[in-house]
Amino acid sequence: VQHTRSRRTSNSLLNNFPQSVYVIGLGQMGGSWVLASRKKKIFARIAGWDVRPKVRRRAVTELQLQIMKFQQGMMESDMVVLAVPIQEIMKYLVRICQHFNRPLILDLGSTKAEIMKYVEKQHADLRFVGGHPLAGTEKSGPAGWDELLFENRPFFLCPKESGTSSTDDLKTVWIVLTKLGANPMTVDPYAHDRVLAFTSHLPYVVAVSLIKTVVDSAFTSQSLFAGPGFESMTRLALSSPQMVQGIIRTNRDNIVDVLESFENSLHLIKNQIYRKDWANLLRELKQIRTRKQALSHDQG
Amino acid sequence: VQHTRSRRTSNSLLNNFPQSVYVIGLGQMGGSWVLASRKKKIFARIAGWDVRPKVRRRAVTELQLQIMKFQQGMMESDMVVLAVPIQEIMKYLVRICQHFNRPLILDLGSTKAEIMKYVEKQHADLRFVGGHPLAGTEKSGPAGWDELLFENRPFFLCPKESGTSSTDDLKTVWIVLTKLGANPMTVDPYAHDRVLAFTSHLPYVVAVSLIKTVVDSAFTSQSLFAGPGFESMTRLALSSPQMVQGIIRTNRDNIVDVLESFENSLHLIKNQIYRKDWANLLRELKQIRTRKQALSHDQG
Repeated sequence: VQHTRSRRTSNSLLNNFPQSVYVIGLGQMGGSWVLASRKKKIFARIAGWDVRPKVRRRAVTELQLQIMKFQQGMMESDMVVLAVPIQEIMKYLVRICQHFNRPLILDLGSTKAEIMKYVEKQHADLRFVGGHPLAGTEKSGPAGWDELLFENRPFFLCPKESGTSSTDDLKTVWIVLTKLGANPMTVDPYAHDRVLAFTSHLPYVVAVSLIKTVVDSAFTSQSLFAGPGFESMTRLALSSPQMVQGIIRTNRDNIVDVLESFENSLHLIKNQIYRKDWANLLRELKQIRTRKQALSHDQG
Repeated sequence: VQHTRSRRTSNSLLNNFPQSVYVIGLGQMGGSWVLASRKKKIFARIAGWDVRPKVRRRAVTELQLQIMKFQQGMMESDMVVLAVPIQEIMKYLVRICQHFNRPLILDLGSTKAEIMKYVEKQHADLRFVGGHPLAGTEKSGPAGWDELLFENRPFFLCPKESGTSSTDDLKTVWIVLTKLGANPMTVDPYAHDRVLAFTSHLPYVVAVSLIKTVVDSAFTSQSLFAGPGFESMTRLALSSPQMVQGIIRTNRDNIVDVLESFENSLHLIKNQIYRKDWANLLRELKQIRTRKQALSHDQG
């Protein structure tokens, strides 16, 4: 269905297909976007910007990227990718609306409800599509640049509800992402943030709490002998605190709610252990394993 | 130091070095022991047993293993590896003490305090070394057989405190494990179980609680879009419930204690989110990331 849709729309969009892209923020997401879109030859010209001078220098030498300041980038580009932390996305959106020549904007922020609410209310004419690639590792900055980062990964899209251009803009972004190798799918921003609270933000808070528990225990790291299980459970605690804080701030209600559900689950199992209720514990563990197997199977 | 120690003792132990090994339990640990010790040509003869007929059949065809019943295996082997769940280890120890020709016993149980306490008190003459390889994945049974499972992995050893043969037996096991490619190290059984409650048993209970939270939320698996972070945080929930229940039962006090510490850590971070205390949250997240980086660095 998606393929047919792209084919049907590609003719009418061909004349307006973006020739140039301007990537703001050259961390893991932005740098990987540069690499992937160049590899797939999507745009005739790629330019970018990062507030960190060190990152800009590495983008020039390692990504062969043309560095462009904000004003020029906005004026001379057909499409802009906002690959900065969520707080910065909000600030950029304010500045972007002051420009006349408005390119098509795609953001890569990890929460969508606040951004879409802001865009719908404040900037009815903005050519904007909300995006969130379900991709990335705990690496941040140039260490995370990877031309295959978006390959075969889900890429959530939130189209604007109002505005004459919104349908065409969604189609354009859809084609760009398909060329990029990602799997675009439209989602409701509120449903998106609710689901991600379970599958992404809860695991992060848990990983951080695991490290805190071990650190507070006053074991020396030499005496810990952490196995592969502990490693994979705490890898997320290496994520950028600033980035994560932005995610948490913009999804606070869902996260608090989900953390309470998790506390209840944990407490139930802890009580079975405390009461030595081994029969019910075993039954619970078996049920959970069956559900985990089904989840892993369904997710491929 | 370890190398010198092996060299110095190898002459005196040469005559008593085990020529034959009998592996009881052919799950991930036992089957991998068979493969690894054959690859490294440690023993002249390897035999084994598993209560599950299906696993025995696969051991014959896929491991080319000689199947031997308990009585014969005990009588005809120099060394016995108990690679069964912890509850079964206890039952085997009772039966083993009824035999005259006592081989050197090594168990691979994931907790050590209860087993060592039992061995010291009940069977002063038993030639026994407690063992726990810090290796393995969530796979169980033949699906987990891997000749490289113990390669370069820590292998905890608890020698008996009493008994004339205990020092020589520890040296023998140490040499066997070094030949196997593992990194043996002696540990106090109580300290071992305390540390593992933090780094292994806590992460398991957390992984299980994460799955329970998501399942209880009534999301369909199709709507979940779990990313790589969620996957790596819940992989442990695929572990064998019977095996895990045995571990939890024999380390209950430590696990309850550690779960309470974890609940406190989680609650502190949840409250910062609830109270929108963003400055302290960011400070906390930064501190935790620094500690995680140090832990990862120290663990190599």
